[in-house]
Amino acid sequence: MRVLVVGGAGYIGSHAVRELAKEGNDVVVLDALYTGHRKAVDPKAKFYQGDIENTFLVSKILRDEKIDAVMHFAAYSLVPESVKKPLKYYDNNVTGMISLLKAMNDAQVKYLIFSSSAATYGIPKKLPITEDTPLDPINPYGETKVMMEMIMHWADKADGIKSIALRYFNVAGASSDGKIGEDHHPETHLIPNILRSAISGDGKFTIFGDDYNTKDGTNVRDYVQVEDLIDAHILALKHLMQTNKSDVFNLGTAHGYSNLEILKSAKKVTGIDIPYTMGPRRGGDPDSLVADSTKARSVLSWKPKHENVDTVIATAWKWHKNHPNGYADI
Amino acid sequence: MRVLVVGGAGYIGSHAVRELAKEGNDVVVLDALYTGHRKAVDPKAKFYQGDIENTFLVSKILRDEKIDAVMHFAAYSLVPESVKKPLKYYDNNVTGMISLLKAMNDAQVKYLIFSSSAATYGIPKKLPITEDTPLDPINPYGETKVMMEMIMHWADKADGIKSIALRYFNVAGASSDGKIGEDHHPETHLIPNILRSAISGDGKFTIFGDDYNTKDGTNVRDYVQVEDLIDAHILALKHLMQTNKSDVFNLGTAHGYSNLEILKSAKKVTGIDIPYTMGPRRGGDPDSLVADSTKARSVLSWKPKHENVDTVIATAWKWHKNHPNGYADI
Repeated sequence: MRVLVVGGAGYIGSHAVRELAKEGNDVVVLDALYTGHRKAVDPKAKFYQGDIENTFLVSKILRDEKIDAVMHFAAYSLVPESVKKPLKYYDNNVTGMISLLKAMNDAQVKYLIFSSSAATYGIPKKLPITEDTPLDPINPYGETKVMMEMIMHWADKADGIKSIALRYFNVAGASSDGKIGEDHHPETHLIPNILRSAISGDGKFTIFGDDYNTKDGTNVRDYVQVEDLIDAHILALKHLMQTNKSDVFNLGTAHGYSNLEILKSAKKVTGIDIPYTMGPRRGGDPDSLVADSTKARSVLSWKPKHENVDTVIATAWKWHKNHPNGYADI
Repeated sequence: MRVLVVGGAGYIGSHAVRELAKEGNDVVVLDALYTGHRKAVDPKAKFYQGDIENTFLVSKILRDEKIDAVMHFAAYSLVPESVKKPLKYYDNNVTGMISLLKAMNDAQVKYLIFSSSAATYGIPKKLPITEDTPLDPINPYGETKVMMEMIMHWADKADGIKSIALRYFNVAGASSDGKIGEDHHPETHLIPNILRSAISGDGKFTIFGDDYNTKDGTNVRDYVQVEDLIDAHILALKHLMQTNKSDVFNLGTAHGYSNLEILKSAKKVTGIDIPYTMGPRRGGDPDSLVADSTKARSVLSWKPKHENVDTVIATAWKWHKNHPNGYADI
């Protein structure tokens, strides 16, 4: 297969590029490098620097490279930033999706795998969260993902573009060989921040709130290892091309870990007594978010290898320990 | 006041331009002329031909013309076309709104009056429809209007752009002096199609379905006269600038007329026994759509002059009788 990975220089996209190439697919990457890293892109992939909103460019790449399917990872994803700069998010995410679908329609490329988010559910009334949980986002980031799914729905009905939306829970970890991993500026994710605190010992790592309605008062989240997540993407693409039917799947392990449990696991994995600060709530954080992943496991035969978060953190540690400054160390 | 009317060459926008100019405002028009008519634009207004998606151009006009407020009428609005070509609608409507708000933010223009739609409500469970009725659109056109309202909401919170969304019911009629009116290609609205049938006598005018759950089996709609509608826009703009608070209002008269009642009224107004065809349902038409317009009447002191549909049709007839080919006759 010839697959275009849009956003293939980002954290999750770069893992997709490697796994797709490893399985023998021809991979083409389009990334504007606004937040992605050129060094994260597998050398086996062909690289174009460009913006998803450039419909003409995307369409030309789809035709020139004879692309069979697209994986779309090119969305901004920082919730607090989306609240401060919503137009930046609607522009890049929603306008970007419209542009991509127009280009796909123009080039007659009919398959799309899309990274959606558990943020589409907002604050769910029941746990675990199934795919039928009502979509009710509480911030612009989550809203953009709902809008993108809605637009995909109509592009299927009218134009026959078949797509699978994968609603991610908390993606974590790094490639098992330690060669690529997470490197965001700013870094807002829990595990990289804990591990950086382990390395620096500066105690600047903060947990935001210990008065949530959870087992120990800190937020509970569902961590899915990034290579497991990509396995699901490849399974989803095969499923989509076999069934020719659009669908949506949650991607989480269905195990919930509190922030303090993650910290404890990180201490065990690293052997370091990691300093941290207990801060107040930062607003907009639901108590608990845990996936019901039955559908992905049964329909896609997805079997995440990292069901215990210790092994997720172990892959992240391998990356951060050897690249304390991320891609600047490569 | 200096007001930019985006889509000022269209049916509703052109009436806004005239009324704003008549009240002594300086009016600037931006219209791409995809569906609008250059001849519909009041000569007192300054005209720019251009696309709302050209953020740079919009921003430049806002600055150069020292604009105080924007009225936005530049959205595609044909429901059946939106189902067939959803990406065209998401592109022009949603991407257009994002572009406009980015330009307003850039030029520090803080007031926006936006033409939303009763299509945001979908098939309402209760009548009349208040502004609190849940938004649940059933086609891409209605979805684009919901998305546009959501984006406006966050642009207010983050960037302080204050806006009023006016949810139109069925806009009808023409200017009272008969100089501008409705001229769509294709024409999908009931009243112009009835009046064209009155002129041509060709019997091609069709009513789609007489088995709805209404008084006579045909669809019931709430017709608001276009100059009354524009009065509400000007009242809304003044209200917005006084209160500095974003809001949403239904614009309908709260009177429901069935398609057969509209036909009967048109026969009375024109004195012609208008031929018509009774066809099957075309799908996607709710039985009845009638506004609760209490909020606009009380908060904005809006008093529509045309509470009886005969007088609405009389204004339309004055236009169509003298311009059977629309602006081609000017």
